Amino acid sequence: MSVTVVGSIAYDAVKTPFGERERMLGGAATHFALAASFFDGVSVVGPVGEDFGDEELALLATRGTDVSDVERVEGGKTFFWKGEYGWDLNSRETLDTQLGVFEGFQPKLSAQARACDVLFLANIQPGLQLDVLDQCEAPRFTALDSMNLWIEIAREQLVAVIERVDCVILNDAELRQLTGKPNLVTAAREVLAMGPKVVVGKQGEYGAALITEDGFFALPAYPLENVIDPTGAGDTFAGGFVGYVAQHVGEPLDDGLLRRAMAYGTAVASYNVEQFGTERVARLAPEEVHERVADIHALTQFEHRPVALVGESGR
Amino acid sequence: MSVTVVGSIAYDAVKTPFGERERMLGGAATHFALAASFFDGVSVVGPVGEDFGDEELALLATRGTDVSDVERVEGGKTFFWKGEYGWDLNSRETLDTQLGVFEGFQPKLSAQARACDVLFLANIQPGLQLDVLDQCEAPRFTALDSMNLWIEIAREQLVAVIERVDCVILNDAELRQLTGKPNLVTAAREVLAMGPKVVVGKQGEYGAALITEDGFFALPAYPLENVIDPTGAGDTFAGGFVGYVAQHVGEPLDDGLLRRAMAYGTAVASYNVEQFGTERVARLAPEEVHERVADIHALTQFEHRPVALVGESGR
Repeated sequence: MSVTVVGSIAYDAVKTPFGERERMLGGAATHFALAASFFDGVSVVGPVGEDFGDEELALLATRGTDVSDVERVEGGKTFFWKGEYGWDLNSRETLDTQLGVFEGFQPKLSAQARACDVLFLANIQPGLQLDVLDQCEAPRFTALDSMNLWIEIAREQLVAVIERVDCVILNDAELRQLTGKPNLVTAAREVLAMGPKVVVGKQGEYGAALITEDGFFALPAYPLENVIDPTGAGDTFAGGFVGYVAQHVGEPLDDGLLRRAMAYGTAVASYNVEQFGTERVARLAPEEVHERVADIHALTQFEHRPVALVGESGR
Repeated sequence: MSVTVVGSIAYDAVKTPFGERERMLGGAATHFALAASFFDGVSVVGPVGEDFGDEELALLATRGTDVSDVERVEGGKTFFWKGEYGWDLNSRETLDTQLGVFEGFQPKLSAQARACDVLFLANIQPGLQLDVLDQCEAPRFTALDSMNLWIEIAREQLVAVIERVDCVILNDAELRQLTGKPNLVTAAREVLAMGPKVVVGKQGEYGAALITEDGFFALPAYPLENVIDPTGAGDTFAGGFVGYVAQHVGEPLDDGLLRRAMAYGTAVASYNVEQFGTERVARLAPEEVHERVADIHALTQFEHRPVALVGESGR
């Protein structure tokens, strides 16, 4: 297996203006794996409860993802999240969070998961991220996600993980909160100064930005009229992005490669929001991914054709 | 003169986390003209009070802008706006608005201003926009901006103007409010259905989107670390965008041309925010505009290089 992801596998209850689901497969590791599995072999590490169904496990194993490191905790309950989105889908309220088996989770990676080329530390307690990082033998690319809670209550530990990974994927509000810098470019540069070579700023409906030492790149989200449920879009993006990088491990990790990775992440994430939870990406065809990347390319390119401006010599 | 702009010429008092100005030249028509004047001759139509200084009038006339339609109202006071920006510059509070000479403003365009090729109706009462539109003889491209207040209290009149212009430039919140559609693509399409051929959605620090019958295009804002004052950025963008279109009147108004117009609007707007009010764009050199357009091109392009995905035949 080439990509190992550690993070939540969950049941989600989600209500949006377009419908609701009372109990569906969710979780950061789930969404990440469904996207990354287009590019490379994925191994999922995370705990589930006794209530976790075989159907959901089979869904997690889509496109060959290895689920042998999914730990079923006897007597435990699977992580549960309940949320509701507002009118324009840009705000959401968490109505319930039940940690279940995540309370007391101690990741124990199998030899196979430890031998990964690429490691993604989805949003879990930074201490656990550090623990997983220590277990991995020699990953060639490591990335992490986090959230406002950990920045608030475990900032020091989080910074200790950030110092050791190659890539940080956070949303804009988290980048601002982590660094205390209101300007996103400044915030991203501060994170780069902590150690990582790559910072990705997720911007929801506006897309995502890539900041490296070499430069800046930004890609809008794919324009969709039928956005049904944004849950998991960020993790799906991360799965496409990191999956693409994993597929090209060994090639120089330059801005060209990272920009293409951004396009694939954006493409898969755009499908994620078209239906509830994992419904769309689980049955997504590779051809559809190609098609959307081509569309995203088409809708972001323009010809640079200099013109004469007033004030120039001759005008 | 080829471009006529009707809108506010103002004194602004602005406070941002990076400093403040107690009384500086501002107003939508001002910012628009300073940007558009790089591309074509501009005529500014709008009222000022007896308090309006010669220095400000000279500033308005930068790069040859014609100010003979700036009406100095005897005994009147120039429009005054006072606002303060929050920590991340994404929110602002209006602390004072004094309409002054704008109360009772009745636009009377000179023969020269009426004969424009391109007309920009900056954010003023929709009834006045309609009046100006009626006065213009045969503009080949017309665009408008508006605001939440008019959508709220003069929606019908605003829609009547929208039905008659070629291009609507609004921010995302205004597009949503105008159409009642939370989805931006749907909202933009609804505005297209009212008559215009072009909708531009301004997205502040995230850039802008272009929606036409032919397709969608989005451009991120130029990434800046030194954002000092966002006041007028939207009007500066409109000035660069509409100015570029004006310079190319007669060429087919296709998506290629409009995309390049977006790049020029984005470039000039990015300079606007680097200093307070008009301070930066007033002394901007054409070479700097070229440079920034080239930079924006570089930071948005990526190579489309299809890869093999899991699930395709052969994998």
